Parts: sequence; C-alpha cells; structure tokens
Amino acid sequence: MKQSILTNIQPETEKIDQFMRRDLEVIDDPLLAEVISYAIFNGGKRIRPLLTVLAARLCGGEALDDLYRLALTFEYLHAASLLHDDVIDHAEQRRGRRAANKVWTNTHVILAGDFLHSRAMWLAGTLGGERCLDKVCQAASAMVEAEFLQLRNVQNMEISEEHYFQVLKGKTAALIAAACETGAILAGSTPKMQDALALFGANLGLSFQIIDDLLDYHGDPARTGKAVGNDFQEGKMTLPLIYAMRQSSGTRQALSVFLQDEPAGRRGSFAKARDLIEAAGGFSYARQRAAGLIDEAMHGLNIFPAGPGRDLLGALAGYVLERDK
Amino acid sequence: MKQSILTNIQPETEKIDQFMRRDLEVIDDPLLAEVISYAIFNGGKRIRPLLTVLAARLCGGEALDDLYRLALTFEYLHAASLLHDDVIDHAEQRRGRRAANKVWTNTHVILAGDFLHSRAMWLAGTLGGERCLDKVCQAASAMVEAEFLQLRNVQNMEISEEHYFQVLKGKTAALIAAACETGAILAGSTPKMQDALALFGANLGLSFQIIDDLLDYHGDPARTGKAVGNDFQEGKMTLPLIYAMRQSSGTRQALSVFLQDEPAGRRGSFAKARDLIEAAGGFSYARQRAAGLIDEAMHGLNIFPAGPGRDLLGALAGYVLERDK
Repeated sequence: MKQSILTNIQPETEKIDQFMRRDLEVIDDPLLAEVISYAIFNGGKRIRPLLTVLAARLCGGEALDDLYRLALTFEYLHAASLLHDDVIDHAEQRRGRRAANKVWTNTHVILAGDFLHSRAMWLAGTLGGERCLDKVCQAASAMVEAEFLQLRNVQNMEISEEHYFQVLKGKTAALIAAACETGAILAGSTPKMQDALALFGANLGLSFQIIDDLLDYHGDPARTGKAVGNDFQEGKMTLPLIYAMRQSSGTRQALSVFLQDEPAGRRGSFAKARDLIEAAGGFSYARQRAAGLIDEAMHGLNIFPAGPGRDLLGALAGYVLERDK
Repeated sequence: MKQSILTNIQPETEKIDQFMRRDLEVIDDPLLAEVISYAIFNGGKRIRPLLTVLAARLCGGEALDDLYRLALTFEYLHAASLLHDDVIDHAEQRRGRRAANKVWTNTHVILAGDFLHSRAMWLAGTLGGERCLDKVCQAASAMVEAEFLQLRNVQNMEISEEHYFQVLKGKTAALIAAACETGAILAGSTPKMQDALALFGANLGLSFQIIDDLLDYHGDPARTGKAVGNDFQEGKMTLPLIYAMRQSSGTRQALSVFLQDEPAGRRGSFAKARDLIEAAGGFSYARQRAAGLIDEAMHGLNIFPAGPGRDLLGALAGYVLERDK
C-alpha cells in the first residue's frame, strides 16, 4: 500500500487489532484460542473492519467502542470462510505460513471457523441490532450460494460474464458491501447514504477480485508471493479469459483446446494462452471493467461533502486498482 | 417413542416440518437446496424445535407463526453441527443412509452447514430479538469449546466425572437448554420460568447423552441400529467407565490394561470390560445420575400449574430415560 494511505490508516488498523485481541479473550479453551489467534493475526490488512469504521465516520458517526467491536464481525466472517476454504482446498500454505489445517487438523479448523462465525453473528446482532444482523446473515448466505453456483459450473467453458460477476458478488462483494453498509447503519445515516456505501463496498470488492484475477496472469511473483498461471492451470474461467473466448472463433477454438487439456498440459500452454488473451484484448477489458466499477463507486460518494473521510475511501479504492500484490 | 406421546406430539412435529419446508424456500441454488433437504428431512424427531414450542406454550405463549419459525433455529444448528461432524469423522452413514459427505463432497457439506448456521442466527435474531440471539450464540460457542475440551483429552484415561459432564454440557445440553429458554423468552415469561425451562432442557440433554452412553454398552442392535462397544473400542471415557475406574485399584488396573491396547484389542476385550464395569456398579450409577437429572428437571417445572403442557414435557423426559434406541 502507498505510504500516504498507510500513515493514515495505521492507527485505525492498530485500534481494530486491539479491540480484536480484547474480544477474543471471551474464548475459554487455550487450544481454541491458539488456533483462532494463528488464523487472525497473520498480517492481514483488516480492510473489512476498516471499511466499517471509515463508512461510519463518513456518515458522521463517532469512533465509539461499539463501532470498532461491530467492525470485527467482518474480519471474523472473512477469517471463518478462509479457514473453511483451507479445509476444502486441502491448503498447504496461507500468507506464506503453513495453513492452520496443516498445523492442526481439519477438526480444529472447521470448529474454529464455526466459533468465529457465531461470534460474528453475536457482535452484529447485539451491537448493530436487527438490521445489521440481517445484512450480515444475507452476506454469509450469499457466500455459500455463490460457492454452490461455482461448484455447479466447474470446468464449464461456456460460462458468461454475467455468471462470473454473479459468483464474485456472492463470494467477495456481498461481505464488503455489508461491512460498509453496517457502518452507515450504526452511524444512523439516511437510506441514501447507506445505499451509496453499500454500492461503494460491492464495487470495491468486485474490482479487488478482478485485479486478483489479472495478477494471476501478469503479477510479479516476487511481489505477489505466488506463481502466475494457477487459475489457468485449474481451468478457472476468469474475466480476461471469458472476454477473449467470445472475441473470435479462432481465439475461442485455440483456448478451448488448451482448456480441455489436463492441468499439467494447461501449465505448459499458459504462456501461449496469455498471448491469445492479450491479443484479444481480454486484459485491458478486465482492467477497464475494474476501473469503471471504482469510478461508479467514487461517483456514488459525491453525496457526501468532500473532506478527509471521503479522500481516505478514495485512496483505498485507488489502491485496489493499482496494487501489484 | 411411546404411542401416547407420539399421538400428542405428531401434529406439532408435522407443523414444524411444514414451517421448515417453507423457510428453506429462501435457498436459491438447487444443489444447495438438495444437500440441505437431504440433511434435514431424514426422519429426525425434531426434539429441539418441539421443546421450544412446548416451553412457550407452558409459559402461556400462543402458537403463532413466529414461534414455529424461531423454533427452526435449533433444528438448523443441530443439523449444521451433524454435517460438520460427518466431515470431521469421515462418516459413512447417518441414520441408516449414506452420510451427505459420501453422497456429495466435503466441500458441499461444510458449506451447507455454514448456510444453516447463518440461517439459524438470522431466525434467532430477527424473530427472537437480542436476548434469544445471545442464548443461541452462547450455545453455538459452547459446542465448539466443548469439542476442543474433548480434543485436548482424547485418550486421557484420567479424566474426571466433572470433565465428562463439562463436555456433555457444551456438546449437547447447551443447545437443548437454549431451545427451551428461547421458547420461554418469546412467550414473555418471568425470569424464574425461563430458568426452570433452561434447567429442564439442560438436564434433559445430559440424561439423553448418559442413556446414549449406556446403550453403547447394553443396547439391542436390532433396536438401536448400531453395534455395541463402539465407545469402548474408541477408548471413549464415558460415565460408567469413569465411575468403575475409581471404585477399586484392581478394577482400575484391569480396565487400564484394556484401554492401553489397540482399537482391535479393545474390541476383543469389550465383553470383559463390560463385566468389570457392571460388577463395579458403573451402569447402575450412570442410570441413577440420569434419573436424578430428570427428577431435578421435573421438580423445577412444579412452578407451572399441572396440566397437559407440563404432562407432555414430563412424558418427553420419561421417554429419554426409558428409550431403548
């Protein structure tokens, strides 16, 4: 992240971490506490709770303890879903360390995820009230629905851009939208403000994921910490590929041949596939879509007066587009 | 279950199922709906939601739609924990059918459990309000804490009766207590009534589990549908065994030798171990504890006027003690 944004948000992320450490003292069992600490304190940037805090501030909300505690909801739900994902994917690594399911067992990790899930709901319902709980539960349900939509379409080369965005909305955008909207609700803002912040969060989440998909083709492994080509090797239909497939029958046919291959074969044809997608304009199209979503998100914030609160959200949005890791 | 109880509760369980089918229509994805239907509509007796309904009625609450919908919380959380348990235990079977993780994959089952978990929290918070959500989240957290307590003590022959009850309270009793207490809260009853019903539920849950542990030694496989001796083979320290181990150093030593054996060896020594536990009074002690807990539960209900509502809860409690499957 850029130094200037970092300087502005660092006190907030530190405060979020302090509240989180205090909140997790509710755990009795020392082993459960250890697993959850390992999963939570791993260098994450706390983007979701930060957005709750910044959204509430933009709506004139005060930086009360309840705001920070409510914000933890979104870090917990995010961490719970990563824990369950690691079990599902038999993950070896997470953020450069051994994945929790390798340090302990699937049993520990599934249960720790369940604990964080119910703690998140408790915070949302008791600090944010019924409306916040409703938003949070809807986001949690949307995450599962989107995973199923994706499961039903694994290895389906025919999926549309619409399908791609529908999965992204559920898997990534819904929770980030809820993080922003909940901050606005807690601050007692108008429905118009709540909608603007929900849209900001949703679009930020969508762009974040599109850039993630681009980095999987063009990222610098020294910066991202992971090799390029994983998505293509898995046959994952991301936006640049979906776009390229419908540009010409020649490109479509060539990419289809690669995609129908075994994973090892796809690894070998990755560079050629990337060239085809590049030539078809798939990467620039995806980058344009991401930029368009961020523009729309920022435009929506114009209902708020200009000032440091809006600038900080703008800087975060800019970071999402420019990030190279 | 006895015919007389069955006749009285059947209309209620059918009503619960109707509400459940309608509630689950909220699911968009057809595959997610299929997995959840498979897990939920499997011949379960709906004891937990039934207790919510009966508790509310005993407190003078009306049989409104919201009561039945709130009651679903407890079936969903129970089903979610069974789904995650099946993944954890690599279960082959559940209630005489293939376990969901064998019909589909761990991915489907973990996610379906997460969906039910968040739907349960949504129902508790939006229909029961903050206090009900608090009780439900506390029960869900207690389930995880108890699993960890048990995980840390696997293969520990030295565990005490206190430890045994602590695990049972978290794993089984907390949710059943919350099911009863939530019904009382929704009915707007007094704190004294809520406490009496929470105690009733907790003790019912504890007795249920003690009887389960007894059936694992003495059940008739033709009735229970499962072979005896599983717990002993796994080295699981249940109440009859814990009690027998502290009766004499001779019994303790003999049982310890069996327990230190491999699972296959323990299977071979099961009949001898059962005789030792019997001679030490372990089974009659466990039965007495179960009966004592039910007595205490029923005694607590004396604050309510005698009548069909109290009788039905009494009949359910009697069934828990007398059940042979």
